[in-house]
Amino acid sequence: MSTTALRVDGDRLGRRLDELGAIGAIVGTSGCCRLALTDDDRKGRDLVVTWMRELGLDVRVDGIGNVVASTHHGSGAAPVMTGSHIDTVATGGRYDGNLGVLAGLEVIETVLAAGLDLPRPLAVGFFTDEEGARFPPDMLGSLVYVGGMSLERALDITDPDGAVLGAELDRIGYRGPAPVPGLVPHAYVELHIEQGPVLEDAGLRIGVVESVQGISWTEIVLGGQSCHAGTTPMHLRHDAGLVAARIAAHVRRLVEEVGGSQVGTAGALTLTPNLVNVVPSAARLVVDLRNTDEQALRESERRLRRFVLDAAGDEGVTAELRSLARFEPVGFDPRVIDCIETVAEAHGLPHRRMPSGAGHDAQMLARVCPSGMIFTPSVNGISHNVTEFTEPDDVEAGANVLLDTMIRLAHTDLSAEEGA
Amino acid sequence: MSTTALRVDGDRLGRRLDELGAIGAIVGTSGCCRLALTDDDRKGRDLVVTWMRELGLDVRVDGIGNVVASTHHGSGAAPVMTGSHIDTVATGGRYDGNLGVLAGLEVIETVLAAGLDLPRPLAVGFFTDEEGARFPPDMLGSLVYVGGMSLERALDITDPDGAVLGAELDRIGYRGPAPVPGLVPHAYVELHIEQGPVLEDAGLRIGVVESVQGISWTEIVLGGQSCHAGTTPMHLRHDAGLVAARIAAHVRRLVEEVGGSQVGTAGALTLTPNLVNVVPSAARLVVDLRNTDEQALRESERRLRRFVLDAAGDEGVTAELRSLARFEPVGFDPRVIDCIETVAEAHGLPHRRMPSGAGHDAQMLARVCPSGMIFTPSVNGISHNVTEFTEPDDVEAGANVLLDTMIRLAHTDLSAEEGA
Repeated sequence: MSTTALRVDGDRLGRRLDELGAIGAIVGTSGCCRLALTDDDRKGRDLVVTWMRELGLDVRVDGIGNVVASTHHGSGAAPVMTGSHIDTVATGGRYDGNLGVLAGLEVIETVLAAGLDLPRPLAVGFFTDEEGARFPPDMLGSLVYVGGMSLERALDITDPDGAVLGAELDRIGYRGPAPVPGLVPHAYVELHIEQGPVLEDAGLRIGVVESVQGISWTEIVLGGQSCHAGTTPMHLRHDAGLVAARIAAHVRRLVEEVGGSQVGTAGALTLTPNLVNVVPSAARLVVDLRNTDEQALRESERRLRRFVLDAAGDEGVTAELRSLARFEPVGFDPRVIDCIETVAEAHGLPHRRMPSGAGHDAQMLARVCPSGMIFTPSVNGISHNVTEFTEPDDVEAGANVLLDTMIRLAHTDLSAEEGA
Repeated sequence: MSTTALRVDGDRLGRRLDELGAIGAIVGTSGCCRLALTDDDRKGRDLVVTWMRELGLDVRVDGIGNVVASTHHGSGAAPVMTGSHIDTVATGGRYDGNLGVLAGLEVIETVLAAGLDLPRPLAVGFFTDEEGARFPPDMLGSLVYVGGMSLERALDITDPDGAVLGAELDRIGYRGPAPVPGLVPHAYVELHIEQGPVLEDAGLRIGVVESVQGISWTEIVLGGQSCHAGTTPMHLRHDAGLVAARIAAHVRRLVEEVGGSQVGTAGALTLTPNLVNVVPSAARLVVDLRNTDEQALRESERRLRRFVLDAAGDEGVTAELRSLARFEPVGFDPRVIDCIETVAEAHGLPHRRMPSGAGHDAQMLARVCPSGMIFTPSVNGISHNVTEFTEPDDVEAGANVLLDTMIRLAHTDLSAEEGA
């Protein structure tokens, strides 16, 4: 089948983004603070659930607070699912996550209003605590949804103030009866802002996401000897700050050597005592390495470790390395990728295939069903920031690609093993 | 003349160090906190002044709170002066400064007890606020003593809590009637702990200080662009943290290239926002460069500036450089240096000529009279720290070198221009 003539109502979608963004709004900005399972998160959930019920959808809340709303198409067939999250970081915007949920709602409203008959239900969900900003790890709700963490363990997670996730779920009234692991969809496709500058920089409007980068965070703690910056000859120093600086500078060189999709950052670096005239006794930095290729990511980790040990040894400084986070790359289903690409092309939207540099709920769903993602441009590449913005035209274009992709997937047989 | 057979009483000197160190003692350590013009500083001053008066000395307090006590030798001749300071940093030891003052007192007591006749008075002083830890700049009292800063300006300096220096002097009763600039001594020689590891590392007991390193502190503020560490390709980054790391790592290379007495440190470095998964939007570091040779220090500053501008330009990051402190190197008087060296040799103490890496009151006195310094070893090179320690034998040996040096200088004609 080709694409449909159906189109979403971009104004309605924009109004809902504004209305949801007003809950937890950060005064004087267009930013938003709705940390998971807070009162503002509850108000946001209540609003979205109201919209879901107004469309006559079958709304189900599961034991970790994920909410999934389905149409009544098909007869018990697995749904084509979309969704994302509505929790935000402490100084977030109103697009990250919210766009995927409200665009899914808009797709469903458009399909229902057109009276389109489909062989399967369409479903839209929002997953609990995707940001992980209050209860680590991130993507928690979707991880539990696909059976990657037991419900019992997840409910026991505490926030930095000691609040327990299960108790907070009860408090806001979102511990529901639907079982986890949840219903396995026919396919899952998520619309999200890019959160980076690639599309804008290339003058494109749609990103066809092929994969999610693997992530490796290595904490490096260096122990040297504090001494006076004036009275201590260079050859008698064990400068932990120098070693930290050499490692941070080396990350860029390592990235260039490994090449391909490798990126690397030393964004967190702290010296002790951090005084002008004292050679640092200690330093801590965390190196963030990402690659869509697991073997290349491992090679980067090996090169980092070797450099750290050599640089520390040269200066007579101790080095401890510890993995703070490690996720393998996730590849999306080629059939879903092809479908999104075909739709973007048919809509006349300049597009490209690309990896996702950030983690998303879709990578969890990819464990259980054919999955994919659609990116819309982020102005100046900015996200997790009150200035986060995506042009209304891009919001609408992204939602229309989601609409036709979901309709096509509803008609596609995905029962065979995924293609090469 | 050769050296005398007089020797100080090391036990008495040790007891006084302990007694003074007990004022402002940091519980559970052998460290000390007597910030300038606090109640504990007043108690320390009162104790030392009591000891001065017990020796029958002529004790004078000047308008900035410097205290100078003189013997009655000679008839109005300029004194051979020694001294240092008794204020400490917030987590200091009991040797830095205190040793020079109490060893001077011990020298005078030894000379008086022996009934030695001298053609000039011997004087011992302690200068206000040498550390500058409460009222910047450091070496304030001796700077005012030699006329390097007006009394009016000095009295108006405020501490971080807004307390005014003049009012604090009044409060502790140490704004005295003696004029500043003060009496120009015949010569000035100061005993101090090395505060570095050079003597200990070389197995030596006396440092004959030839000079004080020039100091250059350059603050570098870098402005880049904050972005997501996963979603932003390397070629679109303006990573202020990377540039800061490259600069900090380059400091060591620069020091090696310039060679000679050059030392360099990047001890203070801060990233913004300092988060693992965010490319830093800003960075600040301060580079500390020191050299005994002014031309070489200027060359180091030129090389630093060039590297900073190149590194920032390569990454598309803005760079602002600002001098936070700049002192030219100070050379001590060759006749005083020779005198100290001769005495150390005669006492059979292994010694070497060396620069001072830290600033001292002696460098201010060097502006007005022939001056020099004697260093004793610091265990593990540690100073400005509660674990600061110098062996009792080294304390005594240093005081004995000071004793014979002062006696010799009292008999030396220094009226001609200083030698080559």
